[in-house]
Amino acid sequence: MRALDAVSIITAKRDGGELADEQIDWVIDAYTRGAVADEQMAALAMAIVWRGLDRRETARWTAAMIASGQRMDFTDLPRPTVDKHSTGGVGDKITLPLTPLVAACGAAVPQLSGRGLGHTGGTLDKLEAIPGWQADISVARMRELLADPAIGAVICAAGAGLVPADRKLYALRDVTGTVESVPLLASSIMSKKIAEGTAALVLDVKVGAGAFLPDLADARVLARTMVELGTDAGVRTTALLTDMDAPLGHTAGNALEVAESVEVLAGGGPADVVALTLALAREMVAAAGLDADPAEVLASGRAMDHWRAMIAAQGGDPDAPLPRAAHTETVTAAADGVLTRLDARAVGDAAWRLGAGRARQGDPVQAGAGVVMHAKPGEWVRAGAPLFTLHTDTPEAFERARAALDGATTIDADAGDTPAGPLILDRIG
Amino acid sequence: MRALDAVSIITAKRDGGELADEQIDWVIDAYTRGAVADEQMAALAMAIVWRGLDRRETARWTAAMIASGQRMDFTDLPRPTVDKHSTGGVGDKITLPLTPLVAACGAAVPQLSGRGLGHTGGTLDKLEAIPGWQADISVARMRELLADPAIGAVICAAGAGLVPADRKLYALRDVTGTVESVPLLASSIMSKKIAEGTAALVLDVKVGAGAFLPDLADARVLARTMVELGTDAGVRTTALLTDMDAPLGHTAGNALEVAESVEVLAGGGPADVVALTLALAREMVAAAGLDADPAEVLASGRAMDHWRAMIAAQGGDPDAPLPRAAHTETVTAAADGVLTRLDARAVGDAAWRLGAGRARQGDPVQAGAGVVMHAKPGEWVRAGAPLFTLHTDTPEAFERARAALDGATTIDADAGDTPAGPLILDRIG
Repeated sequence: MRALDAVSIITAKRDGGELADEQIDWVIDAYTRGAVADEQMAALAMAIVWRGLDRRETARWTAAMIASGQRMDFTDLPRPTVDKHSTGGVGDKITLPLTPLVAACGAAVPQLSGRGLGHTGGTLDKLEAIPGWQADISVARMRELLADPAIGAVICAAGAGLVPADRKLYALRDVTGTVESVPLLASSIMSKKIAEGTAALVLDVKVGAGAFLPDLADARVLARTMVELGTDAGVRTTALLTDMDAPLGHTAGNALEVAESVEVLAGGGPADVVALTLALAREMVAAAGLDADPAEVLASGRAMDHWRAMIAAQGGDPDAPLPRAAHTETVTAAADGVLTRLDARAVGDAAWRLGAGRARQGDPVQAGAGVVMHAKPGEWVRAGAPLFTLHTDTPEAFERARAALDGATTIDADAGDTPAGPLILDRIG
Repeated sequence: MRALDAVSIITAKRDGGELADEQIDWVIDAYTRGAVADEQMAALAMAIVWRGLDRRETARWTAAMIASGQRMDFTDLPRPTVDKHSTGGVGDKITLPLTPLVAACGAAVPQLSGRGLGHTGGTLDKLEAIPGWQADISVARMRELLADPAIGAVICAAGAGLVPADRKLYALRDVTGTVESVPLLASSIMSKKIAEGTAALVLDVKVGAGAFLPDLADARVLARTMVELGTDAGVRTTALLTDMDAPLGHTAGNALEVAESVEVLAGGGPADVVALTLALAREMVAAAGLDADPAEVLASGRAMDHWRAMIAAQGGDPDAPLPRAAHTETVTAAADGVLTRLDARAVGDAAWRLGAGRARQGDPVQAGAGVVMHAKPGEWVRAGAPLFTLHTDTPEAFERARAALDGATTIDADAGDTPAGPLILDRIG
């Protein structure tokens, strides 16, 4: 029997040892209860950044986090459950068209989503741009919506009872420089997805300048760790590694991205958003054991029907005009040429500074703020033509947004036809 | 200009970078003020255990800790100041005879000391066994005692204004598994010694089973780091690396060690205590630029005169009988033979469990509790003869003390004459 006290556990990991199952169970439970102090968990988290957790430790850590709260169960639903998680990118509105599309294919999609922090937006922030829409609903209501064949999907906030250990630990890691650890990232994401009770899961792991992990090798390790965790917990899990050098679509911002998502559901929208939505939908449909063709379902308009029903079920008016920012300004191209680079991180920062995102948890966001991109990488631009339109309610933000975009693009007069690189870099699972 | 915020500093060190001077200054000051949270400093401390601090960073860290509080100045005293610090061992009462001896040689000795924690005793706990003696005195009174040619020495507690950053950081490291770092250990010790205003310093770095650092190579790195820190700060600093496999002298416990120290001042006492006291005194006298011979001064009785004056000046009665524990038990030898091993750590644990030490800061200690050792390594013992006498006011502690001593000794019937190993293993400076 190993010692169950915080200092013994910290020093064991610090010295490169493996933590026993009972040590992991104890430290997660004691931390959630407040018996292990924040400073002790911070030291342990840094020791884990240093020494790592092996596959057994990571699985146990995840299980202990799940055990800190309630666990949902949707096995009695008449339709197979499947969910998707993205590690976060700029302009990543894919959840909005994808969720009703997969529901229209016959699955039930219990999407617990989050709010944005820093340069990446949050799905709940985007949907809250729709007049009347509510992120908080009860588990009983969630079950009703998932069981309803005309809806079959819900996008909502996780309740406080779902993985409270992660809620506390994530806030701690955010202020102690201990976010960047594959086992801690993977267990944070997967504990919530496993606790939410989905039977299948597709992960969209972003790679590139606008992603949390710029490097493909690192992203692959994270993806593999999450796929292992899901599989070991009985959730059919696969991952796509997808490009996040440039933003997705033509918009970054809350109402702007809702409007672009509705275009996709109406059969239009930017090619990259459509392509990624369909690729993820095919993965989800297969993981759910269904044989619908997402492209056909999208073209039929049934995905739009599910979107309208899903939004209305959570109090939103799908026909209401979306909020628009009070002020706009245009950024123009300095030269003729091919746009060979459009930095996702810079665009995300600009949208954030315009008011679309928040610097601290709990800050409000502007529904109408954000950036519209008039050209995508590979396209020809003319000197003086608009590259970006900036939207905000607070015009003093224009200067900081312009500063963020300074150097965000490369225009090459000599570049020939430069097709965009592949959107999907790898598949794991 | 680098970012002055906690997360940037933590992640810079986590990723193996060097901290800039202004980052170190800021983080120590902000932590002392409470603007950097305990969990952030804990993560930084673990990152330092991992990545280390180089010589410049360690010096700056030490200087920033000193700058967090007041700094004493004894340069106007008519006699040269010199002090000694021990990294702590079992039965290490050397400060008691050493301080008045060096004062009797003509130096002024400003000994700021601490209390014990765990298996090593504290100098203040030992002196508080003397009826009436007070550890807390003002800086003005300290200066008076140091200037008095009949005293010239003071052993007292550091005031709250001396290196408050270390006070807070040490308590944090104690509960977060971040004690074991050479730069953090060295800066903790040296910040207090430099701030106390001594012109010269001799370090007694313990090595062996009963020491904080069992390994000679590790101890040598710590000693060299501290000597560099002192030298860079203008303090003439040298270090002796001394053996702590077996306890020093025949006693471990507060009043028991005072009595043994008085024996040394009276010209008797255990050979190892006398030898180490004289070795350290010679280092200190040389560092102070004096040419007295400590052996001659000890033999003259003048060290005892200074002891009596020093104790009386802090309210103690040097003639009062010392407290004795209410209960004693004897542990006897199981066989005839040479005592080839006497484990210092086990003896320290036994004394602690008998009541001589504390498990938590602020706990009381028993003045009379402890262990008397009737044989030292290299001596012949007979089966049934006393090996240890255990002293305590709480007889229920005997069982745990006996358990601690179980396996603490090796008696070898076939061992020939086995002289004890060298007491002084190396000298640095």
